[in-house]
Amino acid sequence: MKTPVLPPRTIERLSEYRRSLLEYLAGGKPYIFSHELAALHHYTPEQVRRDIMLIGYSSFQRKGYDVKKLIRRIAGILDTPRGINVAVVGFGNLGHAITNYFRGKRSKLNIIASFDNDPGKVGKVTLGVVCYPVQQLHEIIREKRISIAVLTVPPEAAREITARLVYAGIRGILNYTSVPLQVPENVFVESYDFITFLEKAAYFVKLSGER
Amino acid sequence: MKTPVLPPRTIERLSEYRRSLLEYLAGGKPYIFSHELAALHHYTPEQVRRDIMLIGYSSFQRKGYDVKKLIRRIAGILDTPRGINVAVVGFGNLGHAITNYFRGKRSKLNIIASFDNDPGKVGKVTLGVVCYPVQQLHEIIREKRISIAVLTVPPEAAREITARLVYAGIRGILNYTSVPLQVPENVFVESYDFITFLEKAAYFVKLSGER
Repeated sequence: MKTPVLPPRTIERLSEYRRSLLEYLAGGKPYIFSHELAALHHYTPEQVRRDIMLIGYSSFQRKGYDVKKLIRRIAGILDTPRGINVAVVGFGNLGHAITNYFRGKRSKLNIIASFDNDPGKVGKVTLGVVCYPVQQLHEIIREKRISIAVLTVPPEAAREITARLVYAGIRGILNYTSVPLQVPENVFVESYDFITFLEKAAYFVKLSGER
Repeated sequence: MKTPVLPPRTIERLSEYRRSLLEYLAGGKPYIFSHELAALHHYTPEQVRRDIMLIGYSSFQRKGYDVKKLIRRIAGILDTPRGINVAVVGFGNLGHAITNYFRGKRSKLNIIASFDNDPGKVGKVTLGVVCYPVQQLHEIIREKRISIAVLTVPPEAAREITARLVYAGIRGILNYTSVPLQVPENVFVESYDFITFLEKAAYFVKLSGER
């Protein structure tokens, strides 16, 4: 079956729903109402029903959604059956934090390599992940069929490393540097900049203080 | 002057524009066209013009925007004149990475404290920031007038710490845990979950592979 094309925010929410549904199921409850799922995430029940309708799934009016089936349906949308290999490029504090965060959490997304220039890190296995020298970027990405890179290098290296990642065939980049990246149209890139997020929070804090 | 109410995505882009404009100015260029600013961020020129019109600023047709004036205008929107104090709550790898990222970058946003339970960290000054024990959360937040918290504690501590932050008067929370948070309406909270972002990238990579 072809994967349905859904809006980016719906995809984010489906990922969040699945996480809560797995916890909910672990609590022994086989059914959940849209308003219960909504309350877990502070969305409206209408939002939840709309998202779930978009993936072609509806609830039994009296019992709510079948949790197991809903988890399977979301997995069908989000997961790639044979899994996706991920590399962390730049293995400093942030690279470590993200790798650690991921351990054992999603079997379909595997962080299988990290890259760094520091001779003290290269060749070591940290949190189950081997650290390779940046010189081997191209070779390892091809050999290990890595399709997503988490970019946590220093800003001055961001553009060059990105060009090398794209040339090696990477298909998606999560950009944690502060540098805007130029990539071909068929490569997914999204930037998560700490300064932008903090400035946004500061703006809303200022705004609410004036009201 | 009252701060104008702008959409969250516009605020994010204004923060991004300011960063590029500062670099651009450092390169000695006093004017910039909307298409140049757009190209730096891979937005459309229409998007840039719309955002900048929203903040009541227009360009000289022949020369483009006055970079210094535009930076000042954006600062007027985003910055709080007397600055905003920020705390990092949970001082592990991620807390370190964020603190380090921020050093000397924005004088109006000051990370002035961190909190942790680890006796090996408490009382130490790292990257210019003192680490306090979590028991002192309430006292330090009030005393130092901290209004934003970057939350990087383990998931099992997220809800309790959030309740304590809100009680201490925190006004904005950047949530880097995987736990959805419940806060009063007047507290800004946004969640930045690594798994959600990676699952989203994986979905778009899968999708483009099917096309």
